[in-house]
Amino acid sequence: MPPSSSTPEPIGLFDEVLARGGVREATGDRAWLQAMLDAEAGLAWALADAEVIEASAAEAINAACRAERFVVADLATRAAASGNPVVPLVRALTDAVAAPAAGHVHRGATSQDIIDTAMMLIARDALDVLIEDLAGAADEAARLARTHRDLAMPARTLLQQAVPTTFGCRAAGWMTGLDTVATRLRSVRASGLPVQLGGAAGTLASLGDAGPRVVAAFARRVGLIEPVLPWHTVRTPVGELAGTLGVTAGVCGKIARDVTLLAQTEVGEVSEGVQGRGGSSTMPHKHNPVAAIATVAAATTAPGLVSTLLTAMTAELERAAGAWHAEWMAWTDLLRVTGSAAAWLRDCLTNLDVHADRMRANLALTGGAVLAQRVVTALTDEMGRLEAHDLVRRASNRAAARSTDLFTELSAMPQVSEVCGRDELRRLLDPDDAVGTAAALVDRALARRA
Amino acid sequence: MPPSSSTPEPIGLFDEVLARGGVREATGDRAWLQAMLDAEAGLAWALADAEVIEASAAEAINAACRAERFVVADLATRAAASGNPVVPLVRALTDAVAAPAAGHVHRGATSQDIIDTAMMLIARDALDVLIEDLAGAADEAARLARTHRDLAMPARTLLQQAVPTTFGCRAAGWMTGLDTVATRLRSVRASGLPVQLGGAAGTLASLGDAGPRVVAAFARRVGLIEPVLPWHTVRTPVGELAGTLGVTAGVCGKIARDVTLLAQTEVGEVSEGVQGRGGSSTMPHKHNPVAAIATVAAATTAPGLVSTLLTAMTAELERAAGAWHAEWMAWTDLLRVTGSAAAWLRDCLTNLDVHADRMRANLALTGGAVLAQRVVTALTDEMGRLEAHDLVRRASNRAAARSTDLFTELSAMPQVSEVCGRDELRRLLDPDDAVGTAAALVDRALARRA
Amino acid sequence: MPPSSSTPEPIGLFDEVLARGGVREATGDRAWLQAMLDAEAGLAWALADAEVIEASAAEAINAACRAERFVVADLATRAAASGNPVVPLVRALTDAVAAPAAGHVHRGATSQDIIDTAMMLIARDALDVLIEDLAGAADEAARLARTHRDLAMPARTLLQQAVPTTFGCRAAGWMTGLDTVATRLRSVRASGLPVQLGGAAGTLASLGDAGPRVVAAFARRVGLIEPVLPWHTVRTPVGELAGTLGVTAGVCGKIARDVTLLAQTEVGEVSEGVQGRGGSSTMPHKHNPVAAIATVAAATTAPGLVSTLLTAMTAELERAAGAWHAEWMAWTDLLRVTGSAAAWLRDCLTNLDVHADRMRANLALTGGAVLAQRVVTALTDEMGRLEAHDLVRRASNRAAARSTDLFTELSAMPQVSEVCGRDELRRLLDPDDAVGTAAALVDRALARRA
Amino acid sequence: MPPSSSTPEPIGLFDEVLARGGVREATGDRAWLQAMLDAEAGLAWALADAEVIEASAAEAINAACRAERFVVADLATRAAASGNPVVPLVRALTDAVAAPAAGHVHRGATSQDIIDTAMMLIARDALDVLIEDLAGAADEAARLARTHRDLAMPARTLLQQAVPTTFGCRAAGWMTGLDTVATRLRSVRASGLPVQLGGAAGTLASLGDAGPRVVAAFARRVGLIEPVLPWHTVRTPVGELAGTLGVTAGVCGKIARDVTLLAQTEVGEVSEGVQGRGGSSTMPHKHNPVAAIATVAAATTAPGLVSTLLTAMTAELERAAGAWHAEWMAWTDLLRVTGSAAAWLRDCLTNLDVHADRMRANLALTGGAVLAQRVVTALTDEMGRLEAHDLVRRASNRAAARSTDLFTELSAMPQVSEVCGRDELRRLLDPDDAVGTAAALVDRALARRA
Repeated sequence: MPPSSSTPEPIGLFDEVLARGGVREATGDRAWLQAMLDAEAGLAWALADAEVIEASAAEAINAACRAERFVVADLATRAAASGNPVVPLVRALTDAVAAPAAGHVHRGATSQDIIDTAMMLIARDALDVLIEDLAGAADEAARLARTHRDLAMPARTLLQQAVPTTFGCRAAGWMTGLDTVATRLRSVRASGLPVQLGGAAGTLASLGDAGPRVVAAFARRVGLIEPVLPWHTVRTPVGELAGTLGVTAGVCGKIARDVTLLAQTEVGEVSEGVQGRGGSSTMPHKHNPVAAIATVAAATTAPGLVSTLLTAMTAELERAAGAWHAEWMAWTDLLRVTGSAAAWLRDCLTNLDVHADRMRANLALTGGAVLAQRVVTALTDEMGRLEAHDLVRRASNRAAARSTDLFTELSAMPQVSEVCGRDELRRLLDPDDAVGTAAALVDRALARRA
Repeated sequence: MPPSSSTPEPIGLFDEVLARGGVREATGDRAWLQAMLDAEAGLAWALADAEVIEASAAEAINAACRAERFVVADLATRAAASGNPVVPLVRALTDAVAAPAAGHVHRGATSQDIIDTAMMLIARDALDVLIEDLAGAADEAARLARTHRDLAMPARTLLQQAVPTTFGCRAAGWMTGLDTVATRLRSVRASGLPVQLGGAAGTLASLGDAGPRVVAAFARRVGLIEPVLPWHTVRTPVGELAGTLGVTAGVCGKIARDVTLLAQTEVGEVSEGVQGRGGSSTMPHKHNPVAAIATVAAATTAPGLVSTLLTAMTAELERAAGAWHAEWMAWTDLLRVTGSAAAWLRDCLTNLDVHADRMRANLALTGGAVLAQRVVTALTDEMGRLEAHDLVRRASNRAAARSTDLFTELSAMPQVSEVCGRDELRRLLDPDDAVGTAAALVDRALARRA
Repeated sequence: MPPSSSTPEPIGLFDEVLARGGVREATGDRAWLQAMLDAEAGLAWALADAEVIEASAAEAINAACRAERFVVADLATRAAASGNPVVPLVRALTDAVAAPAAGHVHRGATSQDIIDTAMMLIARDALDVLIEDLAGAADEAARLARTHRDLAMPARTLLQQAVPTTFGCRAAGWMTGLDTVATRLRSVRASGLPVQLGGAAGTLASLGDAGPRVVAAFARRVGLIEPVLPWHTVRTPVGELAGTLGVTAGVCGKIARDVTLLAQTEVGEVSEGVQGRGGSSTMPHKHNPVAAIATVAAATTAPGLVSTLLTAMTAELERAAGAWHAEWMAWTDLLRVTGSAAAWLRDCLTNLDVHADRMRANLALTGGAVLAQRVVTALTDEMGRLEAHDLVRRASNRAAARSTDLFTELSAMPQVSEVCGRDELRRLLDPDDAVGTAAALVDRALARRA
Repeated sequence: MPPSSSTPEPIGLFDEVLARGGVREATGDRAWLQAMLDAEAGLAWALADAEVIEASAAEAINAACRAERFVVADLATRAAASGNPVVPLVRALTDAVAAPAAGHVHRGATSQDIIDTAMMLIARDALDVLIEDLAGAADEAARLARTHRDLAMPARTLLQQAVPTTFGCRAAGWMTGLDTVATRLRSVRASGLPVQLGGAAGTLASLGDAGPRVVAAFARRVGLIEPVLPWHTVRTPVGELAGTLGVTAGVCGKIARDVTLLAQTEVGEVSEGVQGRGGSSTMPHKHNPVAAIATVAAATTAPGLVSTLLTAMTAELERAAGAWHAEWMAWTDLLRVTGSAAAWLRDCLTNLDVHADRMRANLALTGGAVLAQRVVTALTDEMGRLEAHDLVRRASNRAAARSTDLFTELSAMPQVSEVCGRDELRRLLDPDDAVGTAAALVDRALARRA
C-alpha cells in the first residue's frame, strides 16, 4: 500500500532555517489537499443549502472529504494529464462516494474554483499563524522599547555614527512597523479572502438560477468572503495579499538586518541569547545571530515571489494559460518565507540581549563628534546654520588629526566661546542630554498601541 | 544663463508610449524639485506654528521655495558630493533667503526628511491623476457592461473556447477589478502617505521639546498624514503603496491583454476605434490595438519595480546605505508606468468597438461543442457526472471527425434521446440560453458600484 | 526507527505540473544530502592527495559518505541551531567514522565550502538532465522546421495577422533559440561550476602551505573547476548560471506561448496530440495544450527567482548574513522550474500536431490583406513607399467596408492597373509566393546546426 | 522653433547619484535617436551593397541620418499613434530625403528591425564605457591587493569576526570578481550583439532573394553581428546581456557593500578620501562613503530590471504585444544603473584610504578569539576535531566572562599545555602568522591577470 497522506508532512533539509514556524505545516501538501477537499465539501453543503441537491448527498460527500483517504503521490502523478490536481481528485472523490451522491461531487464547479478557494483557505490558516508570530514579535519589540526607553546609543546613518538615539526609540520603530503590517494582514484576513465559484467560465451556468445563492452559501460554509463577481482572472485577492506579505517580509528583514549590524563584533550592542545556538563549525568563539540571519534570508526571498505573483495577474481571458499555474508554488512559498521571517524574528527579539555598556562605549568612540550637531544648533542663532556647520566641521577634523576630542577643540575656538560657555558646551556634548524627544516618541508609540 | 527649471519638463523619446498621462508631469524633475521645496516651506511654517521661529522667517523662506528659481542641472551636478540633491538645494535656498530667516532654512531636518516627504507629495499628486484615470476606465467598463449585458460570446479558458459568457459579464469583471484597486489607492492616498521628520537620527533632537508639535504642524502644512514615529528606515509607507501600485498595474494589464486577444484577426470581437492610430510602418491593412499594447507594456514593467522597492525595505539602522537611494527612481518609475497603464487603458476602453457579429460567428465555430457542458449537466441526474462527461466527449470527437455538429451526433445516440428530446437538446445547444446568471452578475456588480 | 533518506524523494502535489522531468530528483533533498557528502568525501581524498592525511583516513571517510546512512529530518531539525545543515551533518559524519579518521572529517573546510560545492554539484547533475531535454526539444523543433519548411501560414505581429510566413520558419526560430541557450548552458556546465574551498575566511588558513594543492585536488576529485580564488562572497558562479537559466526559461516560455496562441480554438493551427491529456473537468470538448501551458507556468516563475539570486550577490564581507542562505531554495527552485520548462516543452514539441488546412484557411481570412505589403513593395518604385502605402491602405479599408477582397479593390484602381497587371497582382496576392526567403532561412539555420 | 535634438542631453535631478558615468549619455534619447538613424543609414548602405538600390540613394539617405536634424519631442508625441517612434521617424526621414532616394528609406524593414538594431547599438556603445570603468575598478582593486598583500585584518563571516585575513586577499577577491564580469561583457560585446532585420514578419519578404545578402551587409555596415535568423521574438540577445549586466551590478554591489561595512565608525578600516565629498547636511563630523553608497543603490535596482527583461522574453508569435515595448526603458535603465555602479565603484576604489592601524586594533578586540581556530587545528591531531573545538570554546567563553584573553585561559588548561607549549600557543595566536595562504592566493590571482 502506498503511503497515504496521513504520513506527516515531510520536513525539507533547509526547512528549519528557511521555512520555520507554523506556516510550513499550514501550507504543506497535506494542508493543500485538505483545503481542496474542504472546498468540495463546502460546495456540496452550499448546493444543499440552495436546495440544488439533497442534504444527504452533501453529508455523504462531506464524509469522504478527508485528506487521509487520498494519496498525494497518486494525485500528483495523475495531475499531469490535465495540468492540475483537481481533475484526478474529483475522480477519486467521486469513487469514494456512493451513488447517487457521487453524481453531485464538484457540481457546478470547475477545477479553478476548487484550487482558488483552496488558495484562500491555505492563506487564511497561514495568516492565523503568521499574524500571531508578528504580534508576538511586536510585543517583544514593545517590551524592549519600554525597558530600554532611555538607553542612549549611537544612531547610525549610512552606517556612520550620527547623533545619539535610544535603544527604546529604535525598538519602538520596530514595533510600529510590525504593528502596521500585522494590522494590514488582519484586514486582508478579514475582508480580502474570497471564495471563487464561477463554473466553467465564471457565469455559474450549470447551476441555473441557484448560482448566486450557491456562491453565498459556499462562502458561509467555508468561512471566506463572498465576492461581488468570480475573480478567476481578475486576481486582485492574490495581488493584494502578495503585496502585503512582501511589505511584511520587508519589515521583518529591516529589523533583522539591524540586529545583525548591532551584533557585529566591533559594535556588540546586542546578541542573541539562545544557549547552544549560533556556533560555527570551525570557529569556537563565534556567536552568530542565527535568528536574525534566517530572517534576513527569508526577507531576501520575498520580493522575487511577489513579482512573480504580480506578473501572473496579466491573465488571459477566462483562465490564464500558465500564469494561473505559476501562482501555486509562488503563493505557497511566499506565505512560507514570510511566516519563517515572522517566526524567526519573534525568536530573535524574545531572546535579544542588550548590552548597555557597549552602547555607552560606542558613544564615546568619536570623542564627542556624534554630538556635533547639537553644537551646530546652539551656534546657529548667532552665526547662521551654514557658518556654524563649517566651524564645527573644522573642529571635528582638527580633533581627528590631533587625536583630541571635540570639546577640546571647540572650547579653544574664540568664535565658540563667545557664544557658548564651557559648561554649556559640556552639556551639549553629553549623550544622555542629546536624545531629543526619543522618550516622548516611545511613550506615544506605546500609548497608541495599548 | 543656464536654463532654469521653468523650462517645461522635457518629453522623452518613449514617453508617450510608456509614460503617458498626467503622472509623467506629476513625477518629473520639476515636480520633484517643487515637492522638496514644498517640504522646506512646510517645515518653515511648522516651525513658526510651533513658535520655534518667527512667522516672518517662515514667510521669507516660503517665498523663496519656487522651483523656477533653481536650476535642476546645477543641483543634480552638485548632488554627487553628498549623495543626494537636498544638500545643494539647502545651500541654494539659504542663499536665496535674507538673514535672519536664512539661518532657519531646513532647521531640525535632515536630507532624508525632505526627500521622503517629497516622495509622499509626489505620490499624492500622481495618485490624484492616476485614480482619476482608473475611475474613468472603470466607468467605461461599466458602460460596456451595461450596454452589452446580454451579448453572448465564447468564454475562453486556457485560450480554448469553453462555454458561452456575455461581453457584459467580462466587462463587469474588468470594472470590478478597476474599482477594487481604485478604492485601495484612495485609501492609501487618504491615510497611507505620511510626512517624514525626524532630524539627523529620528529623535527630533535639534528641535527640543517642540519636536512633536513641529511634526504635527508640518503634516498639516503640507497636507500629509502625521506618523506615529519617524519612518526613515521602517519603510511601510513605501512598501504599501508599491504593492498597491503593482496590483493596479496587474489589473490594467489583465484587461489590456484581454483586449489584445479579443482583437486578434482570427477572433475580431473588439477593436480600438481611434482614427489614424494603430497603423503599421509596413503593413497597410493592420490595425493594431495600440492602447491595449501600451497598457500591457506598462504592466510588464511594474512587478520588477515593486520588487526593487520591497528589497530596499531591508534598510540599515537609521539611514540605509544605498537602499534608500535606490527608491528614488523606482518610486518615480512605478508611479509613471502605473499611471501610463491607467491612462492608456482608459483610452482603450473609451474607444473600444465591440463586434457582436464576430462573437456570434465565433460561438458557432465549434459546431456546438462550447455548449457541451450543458448537455453533461442535463444528463447528469440520469447517468451521473462522469458517464455523462465521457458520453458527450465521444459525441464531440465524432462531430469533429465527421465534420458534423454536436446536435447531430448527440441526437443520434440512444442513451441521449432516452433522457432528452430533440427540442430540449436544441435549447441546451443555444448559446443565448446558456450564459447562466451572467446578466444577474452584471446587474449585481453595477448595483454595488452605484 | 525514523525513515532514512533511502526513502524515495517524495513527490509534491504540484510537482508533475510545475517541477516535471529529471531535474526534480537531481535537486531533491536526497540529492542535496549526497552532494554535501560527496563534497566531504572529495575533500578527504584531496587531503590525502596533498599528503595532509593518510589515504586510509580518506577511504574511511569516503565509505561513510552515503546519503542513505543519514536522516534528512534529523539534520534538518538540528540545522536550526547553527543556521545550516552542515554543522549537524559533520557531527553525524564524524560519529559514523572510526578514529583516527574521524578527526579529519571536514578538515580545513567551513560549512559554506560544503554547501557551495554541493550547490555546484547539484547544478552540474541538473544541467545534464536539463541540457538533454533542451537538446531534445531543439531536435523536435528542427524536425518541425524541416518537415514544414514550405508550409505557408499567417505571421502575426502584435497579435494581428501580418504577412505570410512558413511554419518551418517559425519552428527554425524556436530551434535556434533552444540551441543558443543549450550552448550557453553547456559552456557554463563545462567552465562555470567551481568548487569552493577557503576555510573559515577564504584564506585556507588551517591547511598551511598545502591549501592550494588541496583545492586543486578537491576540484579533480569532485569533478568541478578549480577557481582562481575562493568565491564565498563573490558570487559570480551563482549569478552567471542564474542569468543563463533565466534566459533558458524565457526561450521555453516564448515557444510555449506561441503554441498556446496557435492552438486557440479560433486559430487551430496546432494541437498537442497526446491521447488522454488536456481534458477539462467540466467541458468534454476541450483539448487544452497542457504541456505548453505548464511550460509557460514555469517560465513565469523564473525571473523572480533570478532576481532573488542576483539580489543575494550583494553579500557582506566574508560570509553573507542572510543573502547566502537565501540562495539555497532559489537555486533549487530555479533549476527545477527551468528543468520543468524544458521537459514539458520537449513533450509539447514531440507531440505537436500541425494543421495545414487551418493555416491555409486563416491566410484567406483577411481577403488578401495579409499580402498588402507585397503590393506596396511592387508599387514603391513607381510612386514611392509612402504613397504606395497610403493607396493600399485605402483599398484595404474599402475591401473591409464592402466585404470584397483586396484584389477586387486594387484591380479597380487606375493608379494600380497602370503599374501592375491583373496577373502580376494575382501573383502578388498568392501566399505561397509571399514567404520571402523563409525557406532559405530554414535551410541555413538547419545547416548551421548540423 | 522648437529645440532640436542638438540640445545637450538634459541631466536628471538624481542622475549624478544614480546614473553616473558615460553610460548615461550613451543611452540618452539623443543616442537612441542617432542609433535608430544609424540603423536606417546602415540599411540603406546594405541595400546598395546588395544592389537593391543605387549607391547614390544610400548616400542621400545617409546624409539625412543626423540626430540634430530631428526633434525628439515631435517624434515622441507622434509615436503614440503607432506605439513606437520609428513610424514618425521614417516619415520625417523620408521628408528629409529628395526623390528618388526618399522612396528607399526604411526599405525592407519594419519598425522593430530599427528599434532592435538601435538597442544593440546603444548597448555596444554603453558597454564600451562600462567595460572601461569595470577594468579601471579592477585595476584599482589589483593595486590595493598588491599594496596591501600582507596587511592582516579580521575576516568577518555573518558579520562576526572570524579568523584573520589580509586586506590584499579581500581586494584580490574584488579584482577577480570584476575581471570575471568584464570578461563576460567583452564576450557579449564581441559576439552577442546582432543586427535585427526580418521585415514585417521575419521572412525578409519584401527584399526578394537579396534578403540574406542585405542582412549580412547591414551587419557589416553598422558593426554588429549577423544572426543566423531574425530574433524579433526569440530574445536571447536581450536576455543574455540582461543577465550579464545583472551579475555585473551584483559584483559591484558586493564590493561597495564591503566598503560601507569597513567604513563604519566602529570598524574604520577604510574611508573614501575625496575632499569635500560625503558631508552631511546636519552632522558636520560625518564622512559618508558616497561612492560606495551610490554603487549599492545602483546594484539594488538592477535585479528588478533584469527580471522585467526576462519576463518580456515570453513574446507572442512574430511581434510581442507589449512585452517588446516593455524592453525599451528597462534596457536603457539597466545599462544606466550598471554603468553607474561601475563608474562609482571605480571612483570609490581609486580614492580608498586604507587604515592599517584600525585593522590591527580590531584584530585585538576579541582578545585572541579570532585565532581560536588555529588552536583547534593544532590540538586536532592529539584529541580529534570535535573535542578540540569544544575545549577552545570553553576557553573562549571563560575569557569573555573573566575579561581575560584566550592565551591566558588556554595556557592555564592542562589538556592544552600537554600538547602545546606557551611559545607555540603565542605563535598560534599571532594574527600575522595566521593568514594562511592569503599571500599566495593574492600572487596567484595577480599572476593570472597579467
